[in-house]
Amino acid sequence: MDSRRAESFSDGVFAVAITILVFNLLTVGSTTSQLTWDFLGSKWPSYFAYVVSFLTIGIMWVNHHGMFAQVSRVNRQLLLLNLLLLLGIVALPFPTALVAEHLINSMPPSATVAVVLYGINMIVISVVFGSTWLYLAWHAGGLGGTPLLRRLNWSTLRFTAGNVAYVGGTLIAAFLSPIAGLIIFGLTGLYYVFEHLPGATAEDADSAGESGA
Amino acid sequence: MDSRRAESFSDGVFAVAITILVFNLLTVGSTTSQLTWDFLGSKWPSYFAYVVSFLTIGIMWVNHHGMFAQVSRVNRQLLLLNLLLLLGIVALPFPTALVAEHLINSMPPSATVAVVLYGINMIVISVVFGSTWLYLAWHAGGLGGTPLLRRLNWSTLRFTAGNVAYVGGTLIAAFLSPIAGLIIFGLTGLYYVFEHLPGATAEDADSAGESGA
Amino acid sequence: MDSRRAESFSDGVFAVAITILVFNLLTVGSTTSQLTWDFLGSKWPSYFAYVVSFLTIGIMWVNHHGMFAQVSRVNRQLLLLNLLLLLGIVALPFPTALVAEHLINSMPPSATVAVVLYGINMIVISVVFGSTWLYLAWHAGGLGGTPLLRRLNWSTLRFTAGNVAYVGGTLIAAFLSPIAGLIIFGLTGLYYVFEHLPGATAEDADSAGESGA
Amino acid sequence: MDSRRAESFSDGVFAVAITILVFNLLTVGSTTSQLTWDFLGSKWPSYFAYVVSFLTIGIMWVNHHGMFAQVSRVNRQLLLLNLLLLLGIVALPFPTALVAEHLINSMPPSATVAVVLYGINMIVISVVFGSTWLYLAWHAGGLGGTPLLRRLNWSTLRFTAGNVAYVGGTLIAAFLSPIAGLIIFGLTGLYYVFEHLPGATAEDADSAGESGA
Repeated sequence: MDSRRAESFSDGVFAVAITILVFNLLTVGSTTSQLTWDFLGSKWPSYFAYVVSFLTIGIMWVNHHGMFAQVSRVNRQLLLLNLLLLLGIVALPFPTALVAEHLINSMPPSATVAVVLYGINMIVISVVFGSTWLYLAWHAGGLGGTPLLRRLNWSTLRFTAGNVAYVGGTLIAAFLSPIAGLIIFGLTGLYYVFEHLPGATAEDADSAGESGA
Repeated sequence: MDSRRAESFSDGVFAVAITILVFNLLTVGSTTSQLTWDFLGSKWPSYFAYVVSFLTIGIMWVNHHGMFAQVSRVNRQLLLLNLLLLLGIVALPFPTALVAEHLINSMPPSATVAVVLYGINMIVISVVFGSTWLYLAWHAGGLGGTPLLRRLNWSTLRFTAGNVAYVGGTLIAAFLSPIAGLIIFGLTGLYYVFEHLPGATAEDADSAGESGA
Repeated sequence: MDSRRAESFSDGVFAVAITILVFNLLTVGSTTSQLTWDFLGSKWPSYFAYVVSFLTIGIMWVNHHGMFAQVSRVNRQLLLLNLLLLLGIVALPFPTALVAEHLINSMPPSATVAVVLYGINMIVISVVFGSTWLYLAWHAGGLGGTPLLRRLNWSTLRFTAGNVAYVGGTLIAAFLSPIAGLIIFGLTGLYYVFEHLPGATAEDADSAGESGA
Repeated sequence: MDSRRAESFSDGVFAVAITILVFNLLTVGSTTSQLTWDFLGSKWPSYFAYVVSFLTIGIMWVNHHGMFAQVSRVNRQLLLLNLLLLLGIVALPFPTALVAEHLINSMPPSATVAVVLYGINMIVISVVFGSTWLYLAWHAGGLGGTPLLRRLNWSTLRFTAGNVAYVGGTLIAAFLSPIAGLIIFGLTGLYYVFEHLPGATAEDADSAGESGA
């Protein structure tokens, strides 16, 4: 199966998921009869969770892009791994809403439960993304791409690093501070902005530079 | 009419439908002032219905893909069958919400009504999908594909099997146990993960293998 | 500007608009603690409005498709007319929600107001669609298509017919019966299922038949 | 990386963002048990904010289109600027909801706060759009396009004009009248309907005219 339609469907899901994050904000204004800067400021967990989730889904999309640019075809196994990845992405607005609602001003253990569930969602996404990448790297030769084996060690390492940060953030949220955990998730997103998929986008950039008009 | 734009529109509808399933979860957190694991656990019907519907729409998309890959053009009849199929897909979040809300903790016959309606939606989708496939298989020659007549018996059989499972699950929900019915819908989704459209994706895989770089 | 991206953006808007119609149904289940067939049956205006709007947006998409298949480029005027058309399409879930809420069981003039507003939205869509079609037919030669002037009279007539039905339904809703008006909107949608854009899809079908593999 | 998938993802986000603006209207009908024209008329801030935001996102999409038509590849920097732009676009339904809710009938400073936040969102979008355009114009040569340097002065000027209008509208909303500020945002949108990206669409139109069939 041509990888183009899988990418277009995934693009659609990423686009909708990233956009509906704003729903957590839409009802903010209807809970008060007097809108003040103080009131809006008191809702900072909503904006914070919104930005971290937006960043995470956005970066995931960029890397998803880089990953599927390696192959020209997808098989059923890859489609199903991709579907599992999208299941994780699409679920993210749920813990985002929990964090927005319960990070502050709720009785313990509300904040902890919300951020830990958020972290578990992050870990699931990151493990499924890693698995999809390993599967794709392993089978790239049969899917119209070039074998990516020599890059495997480095990519394994990097994804492990990501997983470690998500696991670490989740543990910190569970035992120390939910807010600190959330900050770690945000920083991990920022880390992935600068550190990127080896092979995928790096090579793209190279070849783009060489063949540039 | 080129089949590409029909696919891109369908992709969009599938992508939005699969993503808005999460709306049934978004309000979970706002119904409590104290978020605990027990509270989140008590909402398992929401997650269960969410995953079954996600799986169903996801698999439908994969098979829709395989189906339209057979032809390069669509005619008005096919567009309308496709629109009817999308009507069924797009409606699915509605019974999903009913199941999430009423599977447990509601007075009888709430759970039964919710799961039976869910099953009826599944049956409608599966009948329309089957009809679309039969129409497409019959007219593939005139739509830029190869005639698929010799595969027809097998595909008819397989779709009948799917329909039977949805009908069976609905009957079991109606007369025995709503939860058992819901489990059958989930298992049917899993069955379609492994058992797939004859001709469509199988042939794709073959030709991909042969023409693989 | 290449017409492809305008089509892909329009497809996205149509896909989202047609899918979010289901939001009017999502909260149905949460308004009762006991779900019965009678209760679900009493919500028939919601389903009726849902199906009429789905049909209308779906048919609009099919005809939008046929219209833009005539040209290979779009200019700024066409983009803006298209944006105006999308504004009308995207607004449709609003009167749909009003009809679902107020067609029955609300004090007069609730039902009348809801269906008349629905009809006004239909009229606006149909007038903008007609204008877009006229503009496109007139300028097709300069946009990479063939001049469509000789088809103009017939298409003008047909669009006038559609407009007349929407105006008639709105007047009937205003002075006789809101439900009768709604039925007329639904029948008009069905009429457009069978009666279609002259030139556009008819010619497609012809050339598809001639060049068919 | 091919610019096509970045455009398709952006199209999806624009399409969803422009469509979910209607959510602010969906609940209007459920707040009254008697629907009258007076009641609907009293909700004019909702429609006004809806149209201004629709116009703004629609025009942004048209200009986004013109901008990315200049290049055939995107690099990571451009993807991230684009992601930041989408973050601004996707957030717009939030201040739109605040304006719809609080422009009239709320205690001061509700209306001022809502419109000023709306204006700040506009300013952020317009600054990020300007930066993205400058980056793209500067690097077009390396991204498969032609250098756009000689057009830079004019485009800088024009974007400055837009920024000035948004800043002016925000200041007027803060110190004089929120409604006047909102009108200025709407007029700025209309201004961009007629005044457009130099180089981008103008050149498209020229070359389209020259190579027109």
